[in-house]
Parts: sequence; C-alpha cells; structure tokens
Amino acid sequence: GDAQAADAAALRQQNLTKPPGSLGRLEELAIWLARWQENATPRLDRITIAVFAGNHGIASRGVSAYPPEVTAQMVANFAAGGAAINQIATLAGAELRVVPLELDRPTRDFTVAAAMDTEDFLSAIDTGCHAVANDCDLLVVGEMGIANTTTAATLCAALLGGGASHWAGRGTGVDDDGLSRKRTAIEAALKVHERLLGDPLAVAAALGGRELAAISGAVLAARQRGVPVLLDGFVATAAVLPLARLAGGMLDHCRAGHVSAESGHRDLLRELHLDPLLDLNMRLGEASGAAVAILLLRAALACHLGMATFAEAGVSGAGD
Amino acid sequence: GDAQAADAAALRQQNLTKPPGSLGRLEELAIWLARWQENATPRLDRITIAVFAGNHGIASRGVSAYPPEVTAQMVANFAAGGAAINQIATLAGAELRVVPLELDRPTRDFTVAAAMDTEDFLSAIDTGCHAVANDCDLLVVGEMGIANTTTAATLCAALLGGGASHWAGRGTGVDDDGLSRKRTAIEAALKVHERLLGDPLAVAAALGGRELAAISGAVLAARQRGVPVLLDGFVATAAVLPLARLAGGMLDHCRAGHVSAESGHRDLLRELHLDPLLDLNMRLGEASGAAVAILLLRAALACHLGMATFAEAGVSGAGD
Repeated sequence: GDAQAADAAALRQQNLTKPPGSLGRLEELAIWLARWQENATPRLDRITIAVFAGNHGIASRGVSAYPPEVTAQMVANFAAGGAAINQIATLAGAELRVVPLELDRPTRDFTVAAAMDTEDFLSAIDTGCHAVANDCDLLVVGEMGIANTTTAATLCAALLGGGASHWAGRGTGVDDDGLSRKRTAIEAALKVHERLLGDPLAVAAALGGRELAAISGAVLAARQRGVPVLLDGFVATAAVLPLARLAGGMLDHCRAGHVSAESGHRDLLRELHLDPLLDLNMRLGEASGAAVAILLLRAALACHLGMATFAEAGVSGAGD
Repeated sequence: GDAQAADAAALRQQNLTKPPGSLGRLEELAIWLARWQENATPRLDRITIAVFAGNHGIASRGVSAYPPEVTAQMVANFAAGGAAINQIATLAGAELRVVPLELDRPTRDFTVAAAMDTEDFLSAIDTGCHAVANDCDLLVVGEMGIANTTTAATLCAALLGGGASHWAGRGTGVDDDGLSRKRTAIEAALKVHERLLGDPLAVAAALGGRELAAISGAVLAARQRGVPVLLDGFVATAAVLPLARLAGGMLDHCRAGHVSAESGHRDLLRELHLDPLLDLNMRLGEASGAAVAILLLRAALACHLGMATFAEAGVSGAGD
C-alpha cells in the first residue's frame, strides 16, 4: 500500500461539498482503494470476480443438503449465465472468471487422511495466483463446492479453537441429522490431524480444499500486484484464515464484502478484524455477497471522483 | 399491495438455482417490489429520487455547524451536478428531482410559535404529492435543510417521548456548545407546544418543516399509486413518523435505505419496525444513503428476473 496516495485521497475527501466524514464508509473505501492501487484517484475499470470450484471427499459423510454433482452442475450454470453471480457480475460491470479445480478428483476425506498432499495443495495455490491479471483494479473472490462449509468450519476450529459446534452451521440448508454428521466429521478431523494444528499451511492442506487454497493464492497474488480484494462469505473468509495466521497485516488489502447468514462467519470476521460492508442475510457463496458490495465501491468512487469541492461550488464551509 | 403478485414472486424465488432463501434480503426485496408494483416481475426502469429542501427558523438559535444560506447553495450544487447525490443518482440510473420549498421564507422559530400554519403545511404536503409521477417504479425520498436534524429530533421527542437529550445528535457536525443549544431549543419547543403532542398532524405542522411535510406528502402519494419507497436518513424517517402515528401499516410500502450515523436514527427505525438495508456510517442526507440502496434493489431484481430455474439449468435440488 501507498500511504501518500491514501493521504492525498483523504485530503480530497475533506474538500468535497459535504460535512467532513459524512459519507462514512464510502470515504474509507475510496481511501483504501487509493492506498492499494497507489493512486489518489483510483479506478474500477477492470474488476475480476474469481469463483473457484472444488469437490470434497468429506461430502461422502452426508454433511450437505445437496449431492456432490451439483458442484459441476453449477459450474455449467455459471457458463450458461443462469446463476445469481452472473446477474450480479453483469450489473456490477465485472468480468466473471470461473475456475474449476479437478472436480472429477475430489480431495480425500479428511477424517481419514490429509485432504491434499503438498503437490496438490501448491498446484491449487498456483492456479489461484494465475487468476489475477496484472491490470486488474479489483479482485473479488468466491467459491462453489458441495460440502465446503464443513471444510471451512474445520479450518476455523483447527486454527481458532472453539470446537465443531461453534463453527458448524447449516450451509446450504442441511437438516438436524446432517448438522449432527457435520459436527461429528469436524471432531474426527481435528483428532486425526491434531499434531498439525500449530502450522497454518499444513492445516490448509490437510483440512482445506482446492478452491480454498486457490482463493488464498489469488489473495496473495493480488497483494503482490497492488490489487485490492473483496472477500465473499464464510468459506472465502476461512480460505484466507491461514494467511492471517502466518503474519500480521496479510489481509490489509482485503475488505469483507458482506457477513453471511452462515453462523460462523460473523465470529470469523471479528477474529480477522474485518468489518463487513453488507449484512443482507445472504448465504449463497459463489461470490454473490461480495459482488453486491462492488456496487458500494462504485458509489464510493463516483463520489470521490465526481463531486465538486466547496471552492468549485461556492458553498460555505462549517463555521463560515 | 397485491398479495397474489407477492406470492407469485415468492414462488419464482423458490425455483431459481440457489438454496431456498440463500439470497436473504435480496429475495425479500424482490417480493416487496412485486407486492407494491402489483407485478410478479417488477421493474426499475423509472426511479425518481426526490430531494426536498427547506429552511428553518430554528436555525437562528445556533443549532447547526453551517449557516442557513448553505441550503440554497447546496440546491445550486445539485443543479450543477456537483453533490454526492448527483454522482450516486447517475450510478444508480435514477432521475434526480430537487424541490426547493420557499427557501427565502424560513419556517417560524418553533420555540416561539408554530413552524407552519395550516395553509403552509398543506401546501408543502401538496408539493410533495406532485413530485411522484404515475409511471414511477420506485420513489427515493431525501432532504436538504440547514438545522433540520433539530426539527427531526423535535418531532421524535414530541411523538415518541424520551426527551431532547435522547434524540438530539450532532447533525452535520455541531460542537458541544451547539449540541447544548440544540437540546435547549428542543426542550423549549416541547414546552411551548405541549397541548398539541397527542395530535400527529398538528405536531408535524407546529414542530416540523416544509421539506419534511413534502416528504410525507410524497410517501402518501406513492402509497396511493402503488409506488414502493426507499427512505433516506434520520430527517426523512422522522418526516414520515406522523404518518405512522396516524394509522398502522401506513409505511408498509417503505423500506429504510440505510441507518445513518446520526444518533437517533437507529432508535427511530426500531420504533417504526424498519430494518435498514445499509449501515455505512453515512450522515449526509440529500437522499444519499437511500440512493446507494437502489443498487441493492437492482441486484435483487437482476437475480429475480435473470436467474435460471433448477429445471432450466439441469441442476439437482436439495435431497435429490
């Protein structure tokens, strides 16, 4: 980030025809874009929404309301333009990039073995890195993967403690029996991989998923290329938890697009000191909540770039 | 409202390619638009943002950080396209209609007399009614008026109780002395008009303002014409409080676009059972918060109208 660009953007905000600070988070967002784009007048000409898709061995434990073939079916629905994210991406003027990760080869069931070996894990991270174009002004990350709220909850429990009951939610709408199976699976996974729990990257490989690893890779690449990031819901946020555990400030270039209705998301955001932009009770994933938040960034930027200053408009300031 | 259109819209939402309810408030908003437009596939082709401007006798009591001439200066800024609302209206694809109400003739200082007599009050309501076109798909109401958070706080204290300290906030950024003068003015007004406090319309005339009366007129006209409404911040919400006090359900066609940083707004929304769509710490007025919320309605409608059904997309449902 560039403190000078952020300061220049903050100064510009002070001179626009409004009481100082009265645009609230819209001001903060314009300054945040300026900091990470290293430009006091940031732009949103090219926005990439990256939706990574993966399949999970843990799905065989009956933890989801939907069968695993829905992952590939929804990827086809993204390609055909029929999903929620297609509509929101078009509205927000963003390019949708869907990246399926070996859907025919699910990760291993992590109640019995590591979900991914090192090669698998690094390959997924690498795929994520390559999804970020150099000339991108904003990256939005989301996911699709039947059973991946179980994966996300397991990562949270492994890296933050609190146990399976605290982090397991209903995901796409699992019933009481399914929720009980979900908790059992998480507890079993924590036990099997107990000796790894101090190592964030080992946890991400053993208890994560390919689409989560790809998200962390994309977020790392964005950081390196000065691209600000909007995170989607519980799974996308859990995907970057290992990064946050590796070093402080690793997510400073990220904002939480929204807080989802999935029960663990609010607590996870609090742990990461991320204050969500929207709270609309959404729980769809596929980057949908963060994609809605793009609209708020556009509003922030429209004001930042388009408003008149007090001097230009001949408006009296406070106490004049 | 049309329950059949709402039911048809709700049924459509159930068949779209997403877990039922997973779009959260976006689903609720699509159904709400359907109910009030009386159309299961509602539209947002013509959106009017009406910003009513008025001046207030109470400004002479030193209750604002800005001098009263700023009201007219900001109306000129709206006309020139330099204000925040101009940028957001353009982004949201909405027509901005600015309606100044006799800015050269402020209301009377309500610590000594009624702010408006009956003729003045009805004339302002009538102006508001006429700001709503018949073919409007959505009305967004906001205001501009130096000292009008004092007016709004006085209306709240008069109709909801709780006293001046509870409802008086810093508005555009008044200092401690100004805030103290604001409280004193509100207390004096409540005392002078004590015998009116049981009568919502009498309170709206004696303790209100022209732009607030115009907002209530516009919201009434919208109701009659089947036009759903987004309310802006503290002042715009206080403007419709007298309507809510007249009869139950009078604001069913309204949603709160946002909750502002002005201290009384959250409590006022709770009293009115309005759950705000955004919470961005904005406190600018001029319809800016509600105008940002238009973007959420557009996202809701894009999904409602554009998504494929499970059958169309060949996606398996829950438990298939």
